Amino acid sequence: MRVALFTSDGRLVRKAKTPTDRDGGGPAIVRYVTDTAIALTTHASDPVGSCAIGFCGPVDFAKQTTVRSLHVGGWEGVALPIKLKDALGVPTIMDNDGNTGALGEATFGAGRGHENVVYLTLSTGVAGGIVLGGKTYRGSHDRAGELGHVKVLPNRTDSPRCYCGRRGCLESVCSVAGIRAITERMLQRPLSPRELFALADSGDEAAGGVIDEICGYLARALASICHTLAPDVIVIGGGVARAGAALFEPLYTALRSELLSTYDPRALVVPAALGDDSVLLGAVALARTLEPESARRIHSISR
Amino acid sequence: MRVALFTSDGRLVRKAKTPTDRDGGGPAIVRYVTDTAIALTTHASDPVGSCAIGFCGPVDFAKQTTVRSLHVGGWEGVALPIKLKDALGVPTIMDNDGNTGALGEATFGAGRGHENVVYLTLSTGVAGGIVLGGKTYRGSHDRAGELGHVKVLPNRTDSPRCYCGRRGCLESVCSVAGIRAITERMLQRPLSPRELFALADSGDEAAGGVIDEICGYLARALASICHTLAPDVIVIGGGVARAGAALFEPLYTALRSELLSTYDPRALVVPAALGDDSVLLGAVALARTLEPESARRIHSISR
Repeated sequence: MRVALFTSDGRLVRKAKTPTDRDGGGPAIVRYVTDTAIALTTHASDPVGSCAIGFCGPVDFAKQTTVRSLHVGGWEGVALPIKLKDALGVPTIMDNDGNTGALGEATFGAGRGHENVVYLTLSTGVAGGIVLGGKTYRGSHDRAGELGHVKVLPNRTDSPRCYCGRRGCLESVCSVAGIRAITERMLQRPLSPRELFALADSGDEAAGGVIDEICGYLARALASICHTLAPDVIVIGGGVARAGAALFEPLYTALRSELLSTYDPRALVVPAALGDDSVLLGAVALARTLEPESARRIHSISR
Repeated sequence: MRVALFTSDGRLVRKAKTPTDRDGGGPAIVRYVTDTAIALTTHASDPVGSCAIGFCGPVDFAKQTTVRSLHVGGWEGVALPIKLKDALGVPTIMDNDGNTGALGEATFGAGRGHENVVYLTLSTGVAGGIVLGGKTYRGSHDRAGELGHVKVLPNRTDSPRCYCGRRGCLESVCSVAGIRAITERMLQRPLSPRELFALADSGDEAAGGVIDEICGYLARALASICHTLAPDVIVIGGGVARAGAALFEPLYTALRSELLSTYDPRALVVPAALGDDSVLLGAVALARTLEPESARRIHSISR
């Protein structure tokens, strides 16, 4: 969990970070976030203008309540923004972290200056968000951007199982657990993405073959997304993307054989520019929607 | 090719239809369309207010020129709307037929009353269009909605080849030619969609198996589209969809195993309501964008 204070133009003032207390449940998390937000803003040189939350799970945006957390129990229908508004005394808004990360990269990161931006994060899970015409596209019932469930393999018993209960979703092959399962199958030992990329870097050809396999799946999903939406850019973030060129070079090769020839893979698919801060900076952009242009001062952002 | 005259609220006044003259090339087609439009509008009881074209191929919407035709040569960079504007003396606008069909179903058909509508047509090719927030979503360089190239199989030599040069695209298995190729592989004889559905209807189990196979591919593509965009509704049109329940019932079964459980397949995926007239009525909706609300009279629509 990260809580940070930013200026409204995206300059970091102060940041705090803590592992999620899974046992403490909802109330402990709310307490940590509000206490930290208050502590961070107490010494702010300007008054805090607004607050935004990138929540790790589905959010009912119209109601401004959580649907559930992807990590811990006790987060069904929580009106988190009201709690923070009461604690901080400023307007507060919440979205899911996929949408918020997309808005961050579109506003301050690798999607800056583009109108239509897709953001995909490869991490514990595979999530995403879509910004069209500069605005978060939410779809019916806020369900757009479930990019981890774009299909890359048949829903058959020989395809890897996804946590959603189906088989063949992008998440089942490109999340950390998905990559671990593929390495177990192809290399006879489960490896983390970091271990896999290190092994390939040491010259292990079989490890390189696994990376090509993973990039094939990812390219297939990106082609489906691209041929549907024709975004200006698809930004790839999350821990798995930290491998950099070791991921992106084989990905570009795979994309050349999946994308229609009107697309240039290198122009279309780019690494995230904000690292771990895509969501925090997306929250800055989200918080700005709460304030009139003239009143923009300084923001507290929590996640 | 169809040319028709409609009232601005989508009531058909008069319609003409002719097979495309492939040998006559661009000039012959332009001549047919303009001559027919003039003939249809000569006897109109009210003056014609505007004209719109749903062109069968990619269109540069900002420039209002064709990129190329999918059926006949000689259609690179043709400013077709200017020719019709000169012939008819009314403002004229053009979009590709996927976008126009989507707008037709969203405005007058199965997507009516919904905000976010995806339209997919299964025919000689597989094309589509996307209407978000009631407006045509075009994407970068007008390339959105290339739904025939959503991926359903790996791009490998054992996957069917698509006309785009790649393998495993939806179009390679769900277009008329794709279905013919699948029936050839699975039933040892090439069948048209109509023949395939007739054979299954006669109780042929193998033919039923082919339909299940095709519906599996289609469901996979629809799930990818749905998990990306979360539309309110996906409208399926085109000749293949004319099979009705014989296509949609196995499709709903396949969708239940591909869609996230938050979706109801029967509410999400519906047959087109306008039959062959999706594009013509989309042109009515497109033509309306040219006129102020108060001046809406009557329209000539050509395709």
